[in-house]
Amino acid sequence: MKKKVAIVGAAQGKFGARGDASHRELAFEAVAGALKDAGIRLSDVDSMVTSVAADEFSFSLQPSAQMHDYLEFYPKANFRVEGACASGSMAIRVGWMTIASGLADVVLVLGAEKMTEVSTPQATEIMGKGGDAIWEYPFGMTFPGYYAMVARAHMATFGTTEEQLAMVAVKNHFYGSQNPLAHMQKEITLEQALKSFMVAYPLKLYDCSLITDGAAAVILASEERAGDFAKPPVWIEGIGTATDTMRISDRESIHTLKATVVAGKEAYRHAGIGPDEIDVATVHDCFTIAEICAYEDLGFCPKGEGGSFIEDRQTYIGGKIPVNVDGGLKSKGHPIGATGVSMAVEIVKQLRGECGTRQVPGAEVGLTHNVGGSGQVVGVTIYRKD
Amino acid sequence: MKKKVAIVGAAQGKFGARGDASHRELAFEAVAGALKDAGIRLSDVDSMVTSVAADEFSFSLQPSAQMHDYLEFYPKANFRVEGACASGSMAIRVGWMTIASGLADVVLVLGAEKMTEVSTPQATEIMGKGGDAIWEYPFGMTFPGYYAMVARAHMATFGTTEEQLAMVAVKNHFYGSQNPLAHMQKEITLEQALKSFMVAYPLKLYDCSLITDGAAAVILASEERAGDFAKPPVWIEGIGTATDTMRISDRESIHTLKATVVAGKEAYRHAGIGPDEIDVATVHDCFTIAEICAYEDLGFCPKGEGGSFIEDRQTYIGGKIPVNVDGGLKSKGHPIGATGVSMAVEIVKQLRGECGTRQVPGAEVGLTHNVGGSGQVVGVTIYRKD
Repeated sequence: MKKKVAIVGAAQGKFGARGDASHRELAFEAVAGALKDAGIRLSDVDSMVTSVAADEFSFSLQPSAQMHDYLEFYPKANFRVEGACASGSMAIRVGWMTIASGLADVVLVLGAEKMTEVSTPQATEIMGKGGDAIWEYPFGMTFPGYYAMVARAHMATFGTTEEQLAMVAVKNHFYGSQNPLAHMQKEITLEQALKSFMVAYPLKLYDCSLITDGAAAVILASEERAGDFAKPPVWIEGIGTATDTMRISDRESIHTLKATVVAGKEAYRHAGIGPDEIDVATVHDCFTIAEICAYEDLGFCPKGEGGSFIEDRQTYIGGKIPVNVDGGLKSKGHPIGATGVSMAVEIVKQLRGECGTRQVPGAEVGLTHNVGGSGQVVGVTIYRKD
Repeated sequence: MKKKVAIVGAAQGKFGARGDASHRELAFEAVAGALKDAGIRLSDVDSMVTSVAADEFSFSLQPSAQMHDYLEFYPKANFRVEGACASGSMAIRVGWMTIASGLADVVLVLGAEKMTEVSTPQATEIMGKGGDAIWEYPFGMTFPGYYAMVARAHMATFGTTEEQLAMVAVKNHFYGSQNPLAHMQKEITLEQALKSFMVAYPLKLYDCSLITDGAAAVILASEERAGDFAKPPVWIEGIGTATDTMRISDRESIHTLKATVVAGKEAYRHAGIGPDEIDVATVHDCFTIAEICAYEDLGFCPKGEGGSFIEDRQTYIGGKIPVNVDGGLKSKGHPIGATGVSMAVEIVKQLRGECGTRQVPGAEVGLTHNVGGSGQVVGVTIYRKD
């Protein structure tokens, strides 16, 4: 990538069942935090990109307008970018492009979703429409079912165990318990995870991420402006984006997310590094099996060894590569349009050394990995400390 | 704008009530046309951007994935860009940025919407959610009501008449009757328009655009590659994007779309020209009053004189500036996510001289104007012949 673009401000609001705040109020909370972090005012921002995943969660046809209205950002540019649960990373891609193309010097990227205004079964059904609207969803498929198939294929092919899946949940809850902005700040035991109720075999309650309200925001700046903010810049070094078939049944493999492999390679190529140089990562653990697949598909460990990788605690701090030490989608929560932006917030704070008890010591290079649907679109972004 | 980006392929499918084609099949039709127009294959395209406005029309949470799946575009990048009825222009903006930022050399921008799978009242209600989800839509506001208020304010302030509104419809049906891809290829008389049934005073049936199925696609290319295609490039010279408040009641003025004024000025500044240098324009005539406001807010005539501007036939071919000679949203149709892309297709074909009986003679510079909602987001784009 020829152009240098930095993140100069980053904040996440409190994730949770936020009956106290509307969709737009959640957005305001995150944006106010990011502006404060950057040491600027909203009037210093040139352009804005909004990530919201689902019209049906916001009861709206143009949720981005609600956001720029409530922030009073008008008349400057804002629109929505969507790639299902990878919307946030797509919005950061567009934010990067806005600056790298010369249209703006300072860009706000906001991700927000309010999911708890509908019931949990309704939310599951709305998200199910992220599958194929003709050949999957109408026949009853929802996301626990998709990822249950991924898990079964992984178990059958590589001998991955239900215990190993549960170990991902235990790790992410362990770190989530240390993140004051996480939805579910509690540790769980392996036994609790394994005994939790079955959602879609082999995935149990604790294998599933949370239905969450939340927002996150980052401020991007051009190389020329990156020194003008309160904190040192964190550079965007690589942006990989890839797609796959709509239907999981059309894929070459069910246990490998090809879009992760392709997007990862593109991001590594941009950054001129390999997976061994990543110090900290946030990956898309919408279900525990998805984190195990991500270890492999991003090259953190060989294909098929993701189960033993978590069993050996290689993704804890002190292991080969700490993953989701913010709690992940599993414990921090998964407000779908906010998730990708929130991942970037965590990596920025890790690279600045601001993460307290869950800080990865000496982290200089970080990666975010964000999946839309069952892998129809994936964004991988690599960040480097100044 | 420092970077030069061209449109090198453009096509629109047949607009109408397309019971013969699914959402994804409409998209395929447009993309196949654009590729043929450019003289390339889909494998020559590096990256893709999809404009779909409403989840509820596609019964889907990630409509863009349906598109790249059906086209077999994976594993290359694709995601969705949305700005209500201005989604298509926002997608072209993102396509432009993809090239200008150096991420790709050849980009496909697709816009598609299938609106007739729900009833007309349901479609009106879905679109109504493009207003404010808390303070407008729940109280019964839908778009004919918003634009009726704009019309009443315009009539009260400037003396604009119902006849002048109807003249916009007569013009657009006149040109739409000559466009084989238009939804409604029939001429109407002033009397027919004035006697059509009242939708929201003073807007009658023929003051309202159509609920349409359709798709359009353009191929963008970098300056380095722009000469490699079947036809001469049409250059994107200016891109203006602006926003306004969510609620029409919060605006400085009801009869002026401030976002049009701001986006227009930005586009003119980029292109280094003024409104007098535009040879042909497509403007967002979702209702006849919207076209009259656009004449004024884009500087084609002074504020308040839009009514007499159409009465004097200044926006017919041979007048000061021909507008919507493809039939406009009014007669060509308004498949909301496709509309902005379809406007670009028309301008490209006008600048190439391919428009037959409705060709604007000698057109060298064209403009598209695309409004989201009641003016919450507007995109203005200026194009120039090679």
